[in-house]
Amino acid sequence: MSQVFVLAKRPVGVPELEDFDLVSLQEDSLGDGELRIEPVTFSVDPYLRGRMSDARSYVAPFEVGAPIASAGIGKIMESRAEGFAVGDFVRGEFPWASSFVLGTAGLWKLPTDLEVDPSAYLGVLGMTGLTAYVGLVVLGKVTAEDEVLVTGAAGAVGSVVGQLARIFGARVVGSAGGSAKVEQLAKLGFTAGIDYRSSDFAQALDVSFPDGISLFFDNVGGKQFEAGLHRMKDFGRILSCGAISQYNDTELPPGPRGLEGLVVRRRLRIQGFIVSDHQSHYREYLSKATQWIRDGQLQSLETIADGFTELPTAFVSLFSGGNIGKMLVNATSSAP
Amino acid sequence: MSQVFVLAKRPVGVPELEDFDLVSLQEDSLGDGELRIEPVTFSVDPYLRGRMSDARSYVAPFEVGAPIASAGIGKIMESRAEGFAVGDFVRGEFPWASSFVLGTAGLWKLPTDLEVDPSAYLGVLGMTGLTAYVGLVVLGKVTAEDEVLVTGAAGAVGSVVGQLARIFGARVVGSAGGSAKVEQLAKLGFTAGIDYRSSDFAQALDVSFPDGISLFFDNVGGKQFEAGLHRMKDFGRILSCGAISQYNDTELPPGPRGLEGLVVRRRLRIQGFIVSDHQSHYREYLSKATQWIRDGQLQSLETIADGFTELPTAFVSLFSGGNIGKMLVNATSSAP
Repeated sequence: MSQVFVLAKRPVGVPELEDFDLVSLQEDSLGDGELRIEPVTFSVDPYLRGRMSDARSYVAPFEVGAPIASAGIGKIMESRAEGFAVGDFVRGEFPWASSFVLGTAGLWKLPTDLEVDPSAYLGVLGMTGLTAYVGLVVLGKVTAEDEVLVTGAAGAVGSVVGQLARIFGARVVGSAGGSAKVEQLAKLGFTAGIDYRSSDFAQALDVSFPDGISLFFDNVGGKQFEAGLHRMKDFGRILSCGAISQYNDTELPPGPRGLEGLVVRRRLRIQGFIVSDHQSHYREYLSKATQWIRDGQLQSLETIADGFTELPTAFVSLFSGGNIGKMLVNATSSAP
Repeated sequence: MSQVFVLAKRPVGVPELEDFDLVSLQEDSLGDGELRIEPVTFSVDPYLRGRMSDARSYVAPFEVGAPIASAGIGKIMESRAEGFAVGDFVRGEFPWASSFVLGTAGLWKLPTDLEVDPSAYLGVLGMTGLTAYVGLVVLGKVTAEDEVLVTGAAGAVGSVVGQLARIFGARVVGSAGGSAKVEQLAKLGFTAGIDYRSSDFAQALDVSFPDGISLFFDNVGGKQFEAGLHRMKDFGRILSCGAISQYNDTELPPGPRGLEGLVVRRRLRIQGFIVSDHQSHYREYLSKATQWIRDGQLQSLETIADGFTELPTAFVSLFSGGNIGKMLVNATSSAP
């Protein structure tokens, strides 16, 4: 008998543990081309919040009463699919279940000569790493002349953005909530970190960017977006891949003041993007990033919650900044 | 003795006639390489409002007590510059004076085989026409598949944007203030016009764009920007060349609500631009636009105020929508 987390009700505002139910799941027998998988690690990501609402979005919403799913690494326990053997590690979108049966569509077999912990394929070598690369390098075309601001800099995406900016020779300042996170930024090689909770963020930006920001990678939206926007250089580029500050809003949040005139006067470009539109860059990124990890230039920053039953707690904690780097859940541990 | 309009004081909010003074000007004698010019037509444009403030911008501010200047067409009355003969028509940035002496830097001699009224070189064949072309064609890459929204559609830039969109085969809807302007849009070949003063603008957009907007050319900012933004298709492009609704604001205007999340979810691109960065496209545009005018595909829409002394009135009226198409002042008439 397996267990699975289902959506008990659609969250209103900030998600709560009561929005999830853990129910028992009859184990399916294996059909042709199917695998039985036990999850090793789950990824929990802010974008899942959008799928818990029923608003129009770029991925189908979760249904009430049906399983939540997210990216994960799993181990094959039983196989009736060619090319997938018992003991192989696979990455895919997994139901939040303790064991499950899946077809192989969308599954990716991890390299067998693993040089890094498999969990890296959910973060720095996975979707969030690719998000950083696509925004900063492919769309943002970062150069050594850039003055880069990253918000949510201690998060899964932001921590990679900052390291990539440094690898490309740019000056990079990150914002994060709390001194522990700001200390992490220094360890990752950021030029500077701003604790947006303790400092006047706008004033701190004035100090960090006396000549303005040329490339702004925003994960956050809201006040940090507005403050960054007003400090852009002429011809500055803003890349937006998320707006975590707004995901739990129950009505339209206020917009960045004066945006329209400023965008014209400073000839700014604001580009929103979603990593799934840019999967064609994954192979190129994976090869570069693996090399950067080998060279010690790129680190994997992770917060790991222990135990399958911690999935909802880990997810909810994203919105109070409970993670440093990529938020993962170790599904093999029975703790706590 | 010539006369010149100087900036009496910096406008606060909406500009008023009291912000300008008409003073007498000692006529200079001609130095080597200089011309004496009598203005024929002046262009008055919303962007001049920015130059009347002392805020950081992309052109130097006017000084209090010094002449206002704007684009104009003039006739050479006296010449000590090679290649410029008495009787030639020139376009340049002119002081708001009844006669003046200038060097030839920045002057452009109009073609002698004029097929159009010289004033067209201030509008449809000048800076505002080029603005429309750069935004819609060069940066926006309009195609016949596009669903285009233009705000300020009966204005100098917007009226050309709509006609260009039609020439490229796109469906184009324009917004303007008042039924007279909306009627003009129909005559210019717009698919539809929205009177934003009489209709619920957001609702009218829902009717005009059941499948959403793919290309939004904004001149206006504010509520119209927000309403258009929320109706963009996935991968939509927004080109911003002005924000007339905000030029007279004395504090930061509210921003477009929910922008950050929306930009990501729909993968929008917002690009601000200023035509002076794109002068390299002028020759190509002039050649195409002259042909389109000959073919009867492109019309010049103008509102002409009569008399040099009307310059401040014509400028101030821009902000209450006093113009249909390009706002010009006929400097040769002594009326009213």
